[in-house]
Amino acid sequence: MNAPPGTHVVILGGGFAGLYAAKALRSASVKVTVVDRRNHHLFQPMLYQVATAALSPGDIASPIRSILRGQPNVEVVLGEAQSVDLADRRVRVDSSSLSYDYLIVATGARHSYFGHEEWEMLAPGLKSIEDALEIRRRILLAFEGAERRPDPGQRKSLLTFVVVGGGPTGVEVAGALAEIRRYALRRDFRHIDSREASVLLLEGGPRLLSSYPESLSMAAMRALRRLGVEVRTGAFVDGITHNGVSVGGTHIPTKTVVWAAGNLASPLLRSLGAPLDHQGRVVVGEDCTVPGHPEVFVLGDAACFDHQEGGPLPGLSPVAIQMGRYAAKTIRRDLAGRARRPFHYRDKGQLAVIGRGRAVADIGRLHFSGFFAWLTWIFVHIFFLIGFRNRIIVLMEWAWSYFTFQHGARLITGEGDHRGLVTRRPT
Amino acid sequence: MNAPPGTHVVILGGGFAGLYAAKALRSASVKVTVVDRRNHHLFQPMLYQVATAALSPGDIASPIRSILRGQPNVEVVLGEAQSVDLADRRVRVDSSSLSYDYLIVATGARHSYFGHEEWEMLAPGLKSIEDALEIRRRILLAFEGAERRPDPGQRKSLLTFVVVGGGPTGVEVAGALAEIRRYALRRDFRHIDSREASVLLLEGGPRLLSSYPESLSMAAMRALRRLGVEVRTGAFVDGITHNGVSVGGTHIPTKTVVWAAGNLASPLLRSLGAPLDHQGRVVVGEDCTVPGHPEVFVLGDAACFDHQEGGPLPGLSPVAIQMGRYAAKTIRRDLAGRARRPFHYRDKGQLAVIGRGRAVADIGRLHFSGFFAWLTWIFVHIFFLIGFRNRIIVLMEWAWSYFTFQHGARLITGEGDHRGLVTRRPT
Repeated sequence: MNAPPGTHVVILGGGFAGLYAAKALRSASVKVTVVDRRNHHLFQPMLYQVATAALSPGDIASPIRSILRGQPNVEVVLGEAQSVDLADRRVRVDSSSLSYDYLIVATGARHSYFGHEEWEMLAPGLKSIEDALEIRRRILLAFEGAERRPDPGQRKSLLTFVVVGGGPTGVEVAGALAEIRRYALRRDFRHIDSREASVLLLEGGPRLLSSYPESLSMAAMRALRRLGVEVRTGAFVDGITHNGVSVGGTHIPTKTVVWAAGNLASPLLRSLGAPLDHQGRVVVGEDCTVPGHPEVFVLGDAACFDHQEGGPLPGLSPVAIQMGRYAAKTIRRDLAGRARRPFHYRDKGQLAVIGRGRAVADIGRLHFSGFFAWLTWIFVHIFFLIGFRNRIIVLMEWAWSYFTFQHGARLITGEGDHRGLVTRRPT
Repeated sequence: MNAPPGTHVVILGGGFAGLYAAKALRSASVKVTVVDRRNHHLFQPMLYQVATAALSPGDIASPIRSILRGQPNVEVVLGEAQSVDLADRRVRVDSSSLSYDYLIVATGARHSYFGHEEWEMLAPGLKSIEDALEIRRRILLAFEGAERRPDPGQRKSLLTFVVVGGGPTGVEVAGALAEIRRYALRRDFRHIDSREASVLLLEGGPRLLSSYPESLSMAAMRALRRLGVEVRTGAFVDGITHNGVSVGGTHIPTKTVVWAAGNLASPLLRSLGAPLDHQGRVVVGEDCTVPGHPEVFVLGDAACFDHQEGGPLPGLSPVAIQMGRYAAKTIRRDLAGRARRPFHYRDKGQLAVIGRGRAVADIGRLHFSGFFAWLTWIFVHIFFLIGFRNRIIVLMEWAWSYFTFQHGARLITGEGDHRGLVTRRPT
């Protein structure tokens, strides 16, 4: 496919896929417009650390404008893409519209509640900074509430934290919760012992971290249990109310539920008229484009790419990064009149942290867990944290909390009543 | 006044006065309960740095529980004091009540809109973290809006920032705004030049910083003008709408107004039945207590203390800190059977920052301005920042932004539409 000079590439979404595509188009003779409804790129793999009060939002997010400021061919638009008109090659962004020669759709995913959208208010997921602050709020308020309530039943339900979903996010949240309870909050209260709080991790499948080798699932389970997390596999949630979670007929009284169970890709994708998979992702071709539309790429969590062994690629940042770079490269090949090559994901492995100084790593043929896996995690994540400043500050925060067991960002902010435990959720 | 063993001191408010009172009661044989509706102590003198995206909320706030965790005679209650029953010696906190032997009321102040409460939504003040995040949101969204709007009139009104009130907060916000526009945002936009943004500082009185010596008011004015701030004195705001501010009949089109003009003490004080001044503060006796109630202290911004030369003490953190320590000392004297001594404020001076590397200082007989005043400010403020961790992190953030001109916390978060410029305000 040949494109005229003055080619306009519109990128929807400033996450990993969109950002790396924009960066990789730096020296291409194209005009790039990045559209995002947030002004910041979020380093999502560390979002659970904001939810558990270890880091501040500013530590893991940077304005997209600043990241791309040195790239003269890029313009950043704060706005929400509403729909795509494939025939006209236009995207509606709020009340205006943008025409494109190439479109890169990298709008990510929200949570799926499997048809129970009413659970969202009761069990927030963890995708945005607002989500993380809301979860932080609820966790801290539950301890505050327990401190004030003499009734043992109420107290117990306030001190029970349920995490639904045993993927990496669920494992990381449960591990961090187990630790904050043991260390950071330990001496803060007078009427409760924060160590008595219980953390439950519920997974519907037979094991945690189902995308990892089984030995690492077992290692994660053992590590979580050592931290005092109650792990239940084969546990399907069939109801969530203000008072608790019901699992296979059993009622678990709790006031704090974190949802880490399923993804649903952005609703914008429906306007592409392409086949979607059960997670709402576009089933893309070998070159990550919409069938019949070589000018429209769908990347990252928005894409169902099923052309490699092992089923569709998982929703991981390395996948998104490689796809972003691939799309940019493909556009440059087009412009140079060279044939496209199919996308091939080079598996860089996966890592999940289980509390302080412990992780599991699945890197090629290497499967390992423990302190060394944790150091690997630190190294990889700090390395990829976008923006030099953030890296230093985050390292300092970590060093501080590692050596002192303290979590530095334990603020309860935002709307809502400090007395109520379920409040309106920022959107 | 003699108190029985097991004396209970209830402190309302975990600001400077309340916190220092609690700390100074560390070794007294009393039980102390600190009540605050927030879980954090806020270092208010640096709040404008959160509003102008230089610091994150976590940098200038610490959980009250953590600050006081090592003090076994202190209990912290997250709750809002509703009213005081002086006869019964009880405070209603949410739906329960606490009885006290001594009560320390240090509930601070909110903004006064001089009877125009409808302006609050349009021109938020700067007292809490939520306030600061809302102002940060509005400032950053105004630049985003201007970038997207081709109409020069709309663009100009979006790029006009009005600060009402020429006290220290107003001066600091205006200076920081002038700088973020010049440096931090300079290369981020494609359609606007952030340096074209105008910053207006409106002061009703004849000069800025009216509590400072006149020479420093002049120095502040000159420094602000050098930064490109338009300073208008004798300028009374007589109207604020979504489209602008009207000042003495002139209409200034703007979408962003910051209110730093007047204080109104907490409404709880009315339930004390004591005389209040025009700012709603309790007119306290020489020992900072309510007339006729030697067991009830009113401190900090909640108190009108008019027993020293120069009129009532100003609403500054050193006043609050000294009052807090004084109240604790007085309680200990009571318990020891010794006579009370009147409170005497030892003036430690005042400091206000005007942008990067510039401040004015009024310390005893020394009045100076410029870089040395700024270094003094840094030193004093870092020194008083509660919590060792915060000091280091904040120093690093400062060093970073000083040498790179970058502001690290430029995130737009929170509720509301990214397209609208006036949004619901968190409470």
